[in-house]
Amino acid sequence: MVWICLLVLKCRFKMSFSPSFDALVDALQCLSGVGKKTGQRMALDLLLKKQEQAQKLAHSIANALLNVKRCQCCRNLSDEELCLICANPKRDKTLICVVEQPSDVLAFEQSTDHKGIYFVLMGHIAPLDGIGPQALGMDILDERLKTGEIQELILATSTTLEGEGTAYFLAELGKKYGVKVTRLAHGVPLGGELTYLDDKTLSLAFNTRQEYQLDNH
Amino acid sequence: MVWICLLVLKCRFKMSFSPSFDALVDALQCLSGVGKKTGQRMALDLLLKKQEQAQKLAHSIANALLNVKRCQCCRNLSDEELCLICANPKRDKTLICVVEQPSDVLAFEQSTDHKGIYFVLMGHIAPLDGIGPQALGMDILDERLKTGEIQELILATSTTLEGEGTAYFLAELGKKYGVKVTRLAHGVPLGGELTYLDDKTLSLAFNTRQEYQLDNH
Repeated sequence: MVWICLLVLKCRFKMSFSPSFDALVDALQCLSGVGKKTGQRMALDLLLKKQEQAQKLAHSIANALLNVKRCQCCRNLSDEELCLICANPKRDKTLICVVEQPSDVLAFEQSTDHKGIYFVLMGHIAPLDGIGPQALGMDILDERLKTGEIQELILATSTTLEGEGTAYFLAELGKKYGVKVTRLAHGVPLGGELTYLDDKTLSLAFNTRQEYQLDNH
Repeated sequence: MVWICLLVLKCRFKMSFSPSFDALVDALQCLSGVGKKTGQRMALDLLLKKQEQAQKLAHSIANALLNVKRCQCCRNLSDEELCLICANPKRDKTLICVVEQPSDVLAFEQSTDHKGIYFVLMGHIAPLDGIGPQALGMDILDERLKTGEIQELILATSTTLEGEGTAYFLAELGKKYGVKVTRLAHGVPLGGELTYLDDKTLSLAFNTRQEYQLDNH
């Protein structure tokens, strides 16, 4: 009892020096991976050393919240009605890569030579959470498949249970309209050691082994 | 040469979907410890899941930049002319704890029972970087020591070479006006294992050992 009283007294004694600083520390904690200590360090850094960049950050957040909407073609984030990728006349509109998140688009643009466009589901089918095909915009995809403008559907959903379920649903959709449906290859990641690879991936890589191409080396 | 050409071609192909999103990712990288990947994750999180908190963050940054200035008494960050600690009539103005950074004030308020006020140097004496006593506001401290309003000066600078040098300078200043000067105790940190403690701290802890107080346990 005495200890609780002492603790309450001690807690009351703690105080801050500036309410605006405290509000900033609190607000910074909405960023993923930022706790109280990191928030304090960031806030001090912004106020003491990076005033100009802080001003830019505040403006960028407000500007992005105001301007960023969904692309009407691929459902990705976009400033205009069509995102920069969909609006680019050089991209092949008949080749659609279906991904779960906008971050997947960034990864694809960074690493691959995909010359088509994307379709961003913003999630995966999860009946328990009430997320069905319609919530993922698959009715829009259905409409576009119906018009016959799409020639290939590349399924790039995650290899989780939900991702595989979503891929299966999409494959059925493609089959309905006779569209070519492909899935990203599974196998041993480059630079990985076989010892640490999980059983299923190794087994899959063994079963889908390919002829060694001397020309590629 | 062929590889360089291919690399240039590949780099040209990389594209983003929204300029406002890119600007936000760039701006987020001014936060300490945030790189491109973390910035992308944070930006997506803010725009897709935390719009309200993002609005609050933008407002908090702008508000802090506008309102936070320096306390005229202790040089710490403050919304008003006097920070909340200096403006509190319950705090003992004759007892001054000299620290290097505002984060040290937060640590003291969190952990100690210091009932006096602070003086925040915003750095330490570093002649090679051109930081002398005046840049750290020691002339203000000198003025206040001269008036005789200060009874004890608690030196809580870092235990680095520069911090110790700064403490020495402050001790000289206190001595000049006959003010009691104390320094934080050095020794074995609580919860630490002796095996991993550095030689100098252990030697100091041994030389300044204190009589075991049965009453405190």
